Amino acid sequence: MATQGQIITCKAAVAWEPNKPLVIEDVQVAPPQAGEVRIKILFTALCHTDAYTWSGKDPEGLFPCILGHEAAGIVESVGEGVTEVQPGDHVIPCYQAECRECKFCKSGKTNLCGKVRGATGVGVMMNDRKSRFSVNGKFIYHFMGTSTFSQYTVVHDVSVAKIDPKAPLEKVCLLGCGVPTGLGAVWNTAKVEPGSIVAIFGLGTVGLAVAEGAKAAGASRVIGVDIDSKKFDTAKNFGVTEFVNPKDHEKPIQQVLVDLTDGGVDYSFECIGNVSVMRAALECCHKGWGTSVIVGVAASGQEICTRPFQLVTGRVWKGTAFGGFKSRSQVPWLVEKYMKKEIKVDEYITHTLTLGDINKAFDLMHEGGCLRCVLVMHT
Amino acid sequence: MATQGQIITCKAAVAWEPNKPLVIEDVQVAPPQAGEVRIKILFTALCHTDAYTWSGKDPEGLFPCILGHEAAGIVESVGEGVTEVQPGDHVIPCYQAECRECKFCKSGKTNLCGKVRGATGVGVMMNDRKSRFSVNGKFIYHFMGTSTFSQYTVVHDVSVAKIDPKAPLEKVCLLGCGVPTGLGAVWNTAKVEPGSIVAIFGLGTVGLAVAEGAKAAGASRVIGVDIDSKKFDTAKNFGVTEFVNPKDHEKPIQQVLVDLTDGGVDYSFECIGNVSVMRAALECCHKGWGTSVIVGVAASGQEICTRPFQLVTGRVWKGTAFGGFKSRSQVPWLVEKYMKKEIKVDEYITHTLTLGDINKAFDLMHEGGCLRCVLVMHT
Repeated sequence: MATQGQIITCKAAVAWEPNKPLVIEDVQVAPPQAGEVRIKILFTALCHTDAYTWSGKDPEGLFPCILGHEAAGIVESVGEGVTEVQPGDHVIPCYQAECRECKFCKSGKTNLCGKVRGATGVGVMMNDRKSRFSVNGKFIYHFMGTSTFSQYTVVHDVSVAKIDPKAPLEKVCLLGCGVPTGLGAVWNTAKVEPGSIVAIFGLGTVGLAVAEGAKAAGASRVIGVDIDSKKFDTAKNFGVTEFVNPKDHEKPIQQVLVDLTDGGVDYSFECIGNVSVMRAALECCHKGWGTSVIVGVAASGQEICTRPFQLVTGRVWKGTAFGGFKSRSQVPWLVEKYMKKEIKVDEYITHTLTLGDINKAFDLMHEGGCLRCVLVMHT
Repeated sequence: MATQGQIITCKAAVAWEPNKPLVIEDVQVAPPQAGEVRIKILFTALCHTDAYTWSGKDPEGLFPCILGHEAAGIVESVGEGVTEVQPGDHVIPCYQAECRECKFCKSGKTNLCGKVRGATGVGVMMNDRKSRFSVNGKFIYHFMGTSTFSQYTVVHDVSVAKIDPKAPLEKVCLLGCGVPTGLGAVWNTAKVEPGSIVAIFGLGTVGLAVAEGAKAAGASRVIGVDIDSKKFDTAKNFGVTEFVNPKDHEKPIQQVLVDLTDGGVDYSFECIGNVSVMRAALECCHKGWGTSVIVGVAASGQEICTRPFQLVTGRVWKGTAFGGFKSRSQVPWLVEKYMKKEIKVDEYITHTLTLGDINKAFDLMHEGGCLRCVLVMHT
């Protein structure tokens, strides 16, 4: 392509400061260096983690930056030594890398590859510890190793999942974060068995994906817990069989659930990021075996607490990141499952806007009726 | 026997009030009712849970009571409907029952039988919700469903493990609590694999049994953590390969262990009952897969805390009670393993006294050199 090896100037939404509207800028995107891939982002969705860092509450958030981590696109060019993708490949950039070489990847016990984390955690690329983004010579930090709120982005090759070119990118961009997180929490982290009773705290995209995963795993009851009763109608379509609104009860929600389930649920999932709810999610689990999985991301500095007796009497407290999926290996598999209509994706997309409307898209996230808003990046 | 169906008057150590010396009394022990077994206790050891309730800090502690839960004896008589043991059988009374009929026993997921808990938790027998112990007509509460600080006790039939009559009761009494708790924490709850790095917080009997279990499971490094460096010599004999005294370090102990192990341990065990140590035990685990098991019993009202990030990045927090062993089924198996010299028992017994010296035995527990003190009940 004519752009290979060249700086590309394109549109991107830059977060110059915390909690200030994003600004659509002409951004210079440097060519990929060794082990890097430059991707033309076609569609990106917004996720609460973007909003969290944008808000300034994330102490690791660096500004100015280009947010975004749930997207799909086409490889524009690759740097030296990149062999697994080539220009033209359809890809999903993955904030969780998979190098297949590090202690984590080789352990067989986790998806938390460590290879590029030291760079992506501080907004730069590993090769030279610098950013590939700039605006009029001023460097802009990367975010989560993905920065998909740009028409072009540069990522590490270990963070690129090559997918079926027939997959509709405007849909499968969601397989970059929220949907796999929920499905994987059930399938990989909790390993829910047929007949299980499941409780889900928070019925946003991740919570609904948990419901879908639980239904697929054969759960006998899927209890959705949310303070917005309007969410139940939608939730039914994803597998939620019962709904509990904590506001309808005077008793603590954990006690309500224990009473509803003859002693507690087999598995619970916290999909909000609220440490008090995380405690309730643990304590609504059945004595002897109930397992609670933390999926939501709490604000920095907050802590979870419980009486140790809860664990000594057999409950298990876990967490999950990207649902335990190995990104490069398993995102393509999830895309195939979608193509075979084995998992939902379209149903999570409630809004479609353009990059220019990104601030409106962030506003929409805080409305109950919005699950995922997809941005069309090139119009 | 001549005593069958009769009240037996014998010696027992009665805790009349919290934190006051136990008093050796002539206690009347009523005959076993339906589903009950009266046992002549020959040997009992002391455990920290006895001391905890005796101290008055246990809000569920009821006084006056007869403490004790780590013992061995011979069945004196059985009540109506008891079929699995008969007079003369050698037995270990088990504070954790196993009925094989309740939701818990049938789950295949836990050892926490629920059948008699509603009675043993409040110091009475299930049949008539009364005690079988009295002193001059005044009822004395049972403790943990065992009350082994009495020459005769009455327990529920689901709480009696029948063992090989050739086993030396003065030794295998330890298989009623501490040793199985440690071994089972490793084998049943954590499921430590060969090559694992293990950290043990607290090198008392339970901690040493964890070390022994870890060694048997093939752990490559077993790191003992204790504020009493004198314990290391003994600990080596049980499988501890390295010793860390938190007092020797300025850094938090979790950081010391992470540094020592290139990222953290694979499994950690808290064998003290200190909630701050429980946190350290979790946080010294390796990102991605480290599992921490709470074995110690914390004081009432205390809470464990950590940042949820610790779990979201792959650590697992669990607990164990009686090491996850099913008591009636597996205590006899542990006795067999001891008889075949596959597990240690004798090595934990540092002192032997008589029932009359029980207050001295409690004093000994707080000395570093004491692991288990066994009381000879009939002299």
